[in-house]
Amino acid sequence: MRISMERLTADLENYAQYGKDERGGVTRPSFSAADLEVRRLFVEELQAMGLAVTIDAAANIWARRKGSGQKQGAIVIGSHLDTVPNGGKYDGALGVLVAKEIMKTLIESDVTLSHDLEIVSFTAEESNDFGYSTFGSRAFVRRLTAEQLQHARDSQGRLLADALQEAGGDLGRFAELGSLQEEKKAFLELHIEQGKRLEAKNIAIAAVNTAVGIYRSKITVSGQANHSGTTMMGHRFDALVAAAEMILAVEQLCKSTPSDLVGTVGQLQVFPNAVNIVPGRVEFTLEIRGENEEEMLAVGARIRERWADIARKRGVEVEQRVLQAQKPAVFDPQLVSILQETAQSIGEPCLTLASMAVHDAVHMGAITKSAMIFVKSIDGKSHCPEEYSLPEDIETVANFFLQAVLQLDRQLD
Amino acid sequence: MRISMERLTADLENYAQYGKDERGGVTRPSFSAADLEVRRLFVEELQAMGLAVTIDAAANIWARRKGSGQKQGAIVIGSHLDTVPNGGKYDGALGVLVAKEIMKTLIESDVTLSHDLEIVSFTAEESNDFGYSTFGSRAFVRRLTAEQLQHARDSQGRLLADALQEAGGDLGRFAELGSLQEEKKAFLELHIEQGKRLEAKNIAIAAVNTAVGIYRSKITVSGQANHSGTTMMGHRFDALVAAAEMILAVEQLCKSTPSDLVGTVGQLQVFPNAVNIVPGRVEFTLEIRGENEEEMLAVGARIRERWADIARKRGVEVEQRVLQAQKPAVFDPQLVSILQETAQSIGEPCLTLASMAVHDAVHMGAITKSAMIFVKSIDGKSHCPEEYSLPEDIETVANFFLQAVLQLDRQLD
Repeated sequence: MRISMERLTADLENYAQYGKDERGGVTRPSFSAADLEVRRLFVEELQAMGLAVTIDAAANIWARRKGSGQKQGAIVIGSHLDTVPNGGKYDGALGVLVAKEIMKTLIESDVTLSHDLEIVSFTAEESNDFGYSTFGSRAFVRRLTAEQLQHARDSQGRLLADALQEAGGDLGRFAELGSLQEEKKAFLELHIEQGKRLEAKNIAIAAVNTAVGIYRSKITVSGQANHSGTTMMGHRFDALVAAAEMILAVEQLCKSTPSDLVGTVGQLQVFPNAVNIVPGRVEFTLEIRGENEEEMLAVGARIRERWADIARKRGVEVEQRVLQAQKPAVFDPQLVSILQETAQSIGEPCLTLASMAVHDAVHMGAITKSAMIFVKSIDGKSHCPEEYSLPEDIETVANFFLQAVLQLDRQLD
Repeated sequence: MRISMERLTADLENYAQYGKDERGGVTRPSFSAADLEVRRLFVEELQAMGLAVTIDAAANIWARRKGSGQKQGAIVIGSHLDTVPNGGKYDGALGVLVAKEIMKTLIESDVTLSHDLEIVSFTAEESNDFGYSTFGSRAFVRRLTAEQLQHARDSQGRLLADALQEAGGDLGRFAELGSLQEEKKAFLELHIEQGKRLEAKNIAIAAVNTAVGIYRSKITVSGQANHSGTTMMGHRFDALVAAAEMILAVEQLCKSTPSDLVGTVGQLQVFPNAVNIVPGRVEFTLEIRGENEEEMLAVGARIRERWADIARKRGVEVEQRVLQAQKPAVFDPQLVSILQETAQSIGEPCLTLASMAVHDAVHMGAITKSAMIFVKSIDGKSHCPEEYSLPEDIETVANFFLQAVLQLDRQLD
């Protein structure tokens, strides 16, 4: 039993037309016109497959095929259909469309699982104008409540509650979401890696065993603004030169860790930011992501130590305010084993990797066994029109995923 | 014959009331209400001293006392009365008020020079909203023409021509400025150092023999914007980390020069500037100031070399666009000698320094013998309310300046 790559390719191309933008990318944030259109298409196709489609209070789309009844509850597969502005056609959509293709293949092959099999497309996974990424999955596992969300608006002043209603959701029914969780037996999400680790090893598939912790802080370096001519080099307290040294320290310390860990200074502002004034103040963000909490803490501590040395040496002050401190999430070990075993049984090489980004599967892990599958990205590009995965890799991973679902159905109660 | 420090101190305090702001500084840009008021005060005081006051087409204020007639032309002393926003009370005003005090002392002592003696206060020396710093002196020496200026407006849309008119100038009379130049025999400007070189040696006075050249360029570092989580450290082309290394190279190379040279990255912007995106592009400015052109060129070349190495190593691209390339200006050697001799003759220690900033005296050098005197600044602060020079140093330098004027009068034809 194999999926139809022809059909899947056509699906990928067809869905990418919704929100296609003039820069060659896909702009389909949740609750946009393009998103509402693609939702309609998706629901129609699921209904045409004979599935029972429901839209929950968070506007997540569910489509269920009854199992044989031998085992209780549903195995859930899926991802999300929304994109960032000028994003690619794989991030999110690939996981949803492969789930649909697996469902179709099972139906055509007349294979009935012991569990129910369910497809899900979560709402607003990407960072969005309402300020709630992984919105649908967080709402589903009750990590977002109606109370929190009732006044949320986008930058245009549109109420999230209204946007949700248009997409078929309902803030008033959020309490129901809790009751829907119980009969989910497992969640598996396929996603593009968005990095280069698989490409570097030329392997198509990864079983994802953890999702990184994310630590974010805002740093203020205070020196002394001064005249760029009359202040000789030895008399300066240049906040930008100090920040430059601090940024290089982040790179150096994050490069020398044994596990997957990244450190980024992504945002930086100089004050007063004039060509002829020695910078008096610099503000920047530090983000550290890692699969190993202990190591994240150790690197964080080493960075702070080095920064203190730099500040002392340069006579500047450094202040750090923590914005976010999210621990790494461990995916379900049984699911990860089943993925690894499945790969072995079909003779496909498979890496075991940490996810360096947060995905819906992380939140689903709060209520059920959850794990992820990555497919190789080309050149690590994502969130841009150049985002790409090879058709042969997609075919390999989709067939692998199909086999993993069958294994899961066998091994889970 | 000595100046009255009591009177000079009272003057400094009085003038600082004009444009005094709530942050304890002086906000008196040219053409502001405070500037127009201080101009009226200044003109009244000059007239009360019996001087012939004229306001030229650039709204520069001139006040002349006839000499004995033994020598032709005028010795000019002065500076400017405008300030940057939230500036101090010494930058500019000190040079003007000491000139007035010298004139007053000569009148009171009934000392008539062989030359005429003239005070000048130049218009809009500081960077200002019309985009023309050292406006008055540049206009006076015909480095700015009426044609260039006729459409100039500030950020509020006010025409420079209109602002000028209110201050007593007239764009229509700019052609006259050329005819006023000939009978200027010399220009001497007293200014605060704005740096720490005098303070470091605990010397009150400097004879200024050159004004720095200024080289400015805009640099674009292009890397690859990418996801801060999924892009591992070894797979990044981080434009900000590259820029950080480039900034440190500027500091290191500028610190190791034998003559006075400074290099500053004062302005920097990151794109897209998001906490979770590896910076794809950074734009920043480089400014190099130096008294020695050869050395400026050599340092510039070494910086470009190191940047090319960094770019190669990091796989990013560096583009540099020159914004300004102004050679160092040499002040009149005879005037500088007279300053040095005067200091020696009165037993005052005197450094010979380069001016690291551009002043009106640089432009006056285009039409007459020109030089400057610096007085020691405290902590190098300027363009801020904390700008300060010690009363004893001001008294020393004012009396020195008075003697230098007498010397100048003797030695010049």
